Formats: sequence, C-alpha cells, structure tokens
Amino acid sequence: MLGGTGEQGRGLARRFALAGHRVVIGSRSAGRAQTAADELGGGPVSGAGNADAAAKADVVIVAVPWEGHKELLQELAPVLAGKVVVDCVNPLGFDKQGAYALAVEEGSAAQQAAAVLPDSRVVAAFHHVSAVLLLDETVASVDTDILVLGDDREATDLVQDLVARIPGMRGIYAGRLRNAHQVEALTANLISVNRRYKAHAGLRVTDV
Amino acid sequence: MLGGTGEQGRGLARRFALAGHRVVIGSRSAGRAQTAADELGGGPVSGAGNADAAAKADVVIVAVPWEGHKELLQELAPVLAGKVVVDCVNPLGFDKQGAYALAVEEGSAAQQAAAVLPDSRVVAAFHHVSAVLLLDETVASVDTDILVLGDDREATDLVQDLVARIPGMRGIYAGRLRNAHQVEALTANLISVNRRYKAHAGLRVTDV
Repeated sequence: MLGGTGEQGRGLARRFALAGHRVVIGSRSAGRAQTAADELGGGPVSGAGNADAAAKADVVIVAVPWEGHKELLQELAPVLAGKVVVDCVNPLGFDKQGAYALAVEEGSAAQQAAAVLPDSRVVAAFHHVSAVLLLDETVASVDTDILVLGDDREATDLVQDLVARIPGMRGIYAGRLRNAHQVEALTANLISVNRRYKAHAGLRVTDV
Repeated sequence: MLGGTGEQGRGLARRFALAGHRVVIGSRSAGRAQTAADELGGGPVSGAGNADAAAKADVVIVAVPWEGHKELLQELAPVLAGKVVVDCVNPLGFDKQGAYALAVEEGSAAQQAAAVLPDSRVVAAFHHVSAVLLLDETVASVDTDILVLGDDREATDLVQDLVARIPGMRGIYAGRLRNAHQVEALTANLISVNRRYKAHAGLRVTDV
C-alpha cells in the first residue's frame, strides 16, 4: 500500500487485513509506516519504506497524494515491473467552492501510471470509497460498488476478486484506462454530495 | 424536449407525460415531432419545431445530439432566456474499443450551454438514464438516481422535484456546472458496463 499512512491507504489496509490478506504499508518514512501498521493492530499489517513495500507485494495499491504521484512511480518502476499496480489517486483541486478535477497531461492519474510503468499491469480502482467508512470500526459492511478499469482483463479480474473480499463491496468492470479520468474526477461530485447531504456517499451500479 | 424525437428525448417525454406533465416534443422538423408525439399516444404529448417547443415550455430539456448542440442553443438563446434549461447531452466518441469522452472547449456540454445561454438557468441532469428502460412499457419503475448539477440552487431544486415525479428516480444534487464534464463522460463507462454485463446500468448514490 504505497502512501499507506494516508486515510485512504490505512482504510484499505485495515479492510484487506480483516479479509485475511497480509498488507505492507509503505511510506517515504519506514518509521511512520511502522507506526501506522502498529496502530492498525500489527499482525497481518506491517510497515516499510515505499520501495521495500512494493518489492514485498504481489499487488501494489497506489494511494499517494496526487502531488508526487508521477515522481514516486518513476522511481519505483523497476521494482513494480511485472506487478499488478492499482491506482486509486484522484487528481483534485480545492477552492472555496469545493473540489474540482485537475487537468492531467496523460489524461488521468491511472494513464500517467501506465505511461511511467510500461512493464506493470495498471488497474484503476477504489476512487470513491470513503476513508471514513473504511476506518470506522462500527461499520462491518462497506456497501458500495468499486469501479475497476484497465486494459488487461486478467488484472482487472484479479482486482475485482480482491474487492469482493471486503464485505459489502463489489467490483464492477467499468472500461479501459482511457476512460479513467471521469471516474477519478467524479470524486469531486461525491464531495459535493457529501457536503450537501452530510453523507459519506458511494456508488452502486444498478441492473448489474 | 429539444431533440425529442431521439431515443432519450422520447423516453423522458413518455415518463414525464405518465407523471402528469404536458410535454412538447421539439425537432428540427415539426412534422417528425408530431409523429413522435402521436406514437407516444398524443394526449399530454404534442409536437412542434424546436423553437416553438422551447417557446411553449417553462422547463426545456436539451436531448439533442452533441453534433449541433452549440449551434441550436445559440439560435434559440432569445426564446430560452429566463427559462430553466436542462442539458442531458453526453459528448462521446465511438471507435472499435467502445465509447470515450470527447474534449469540449467549454469543459462540458452543460458549460457550453451556460456559455451560449447567459440569460437561462442551466442545469445538467439525466445523463445516465437508459433510454431503453424509459421506453419499455413493462418497466413501471426506473430505479436509478439522477445526478443534478448547476450553479442556481432554485433551478437544481426544481429539477430534483421533477425527477422525483418519475417512479423509481431520485434527483441528487451533485455539484456545480464546472464538475459536469465527468458526469457526462461517465456515460462512456456505463456503456462499457452494459457491454460487459449485458445490462442497462444506472447509478445509485449510497448513504443519501
């Protein structure tokens, strides 16, 4: 879990550990990663520097801030080669009117990841899930669908299977990476929903 | 209902008529508009040229193809002044890999509408609802949420109320027009979902 000390990273780490997976929280600082792992109860969750975390994992989830996303992935490209890399980064800006989507040269964070990681199998997922719900110990089931995007069918199938390990979640294939921008950007709309309705909004896809 | 002879336009016209509203289907050709109205059973549904349809309506829904969207609205700007204009146009391209979002100079179809209709109250809504379900006489309840976007609270509230007249539908405020692009573009993802799962996918917002 690269950037695993952030809210989203800790939340996903917690849920995957509860589902029986071993999780390595990665951070620029191995010490902070270890602290975050300890706070999640240790056990199946350990901490390491981002590069070590990436080296230890079969599937790498990228939950870093948008600032520094490209640089970190470029740096880790050799160790991420051949692996499934799940990007859940939302390039958003904020001003007094709320959140808005940032323009990304490559089209989206996921396409940027694919561009700098040509030897990895990049999937986009987990953009809309509420970190608050993931971390809430009173929430047993996180009832939301996860849109899973990618150009590698085997990799998107694997990520959908991983999603299904978390109670309440369902992974829905939602297109190729070229259509990732709007999925990332839609997080701005969900932030507007949360503000208006005092909610932790997620999405369900109907008729599937 | 501008462009009301298309699938989306006829589908929405049908549902609003069933909900007790008078609906004027607009088309470039008044004759084709009348034919579409007759096929929907007439009664509360009538047909007219786009300009006459716009003149007769309190709320104008724009369901035209993306090609010609700007030109039509520019032409109708005087008659649309002061009215609530609901844009449900999705600027999409298609190739052998499916649908993808087109770049729009103004940011989105809805923002383009707002730019050429400075005296109208532009709202974006109805992007994701399946025309097939709207037109299916065996479907009594269209179970989906409608994301409603706009910068004019009174206008978005009005459109949410209109949405709620259609059984199964719920209007959810989902942000300002500057965040309309990703809502329009997400239709490309739903087309991928439909193809993969043989579905008529819609969205529900959870925790609201």
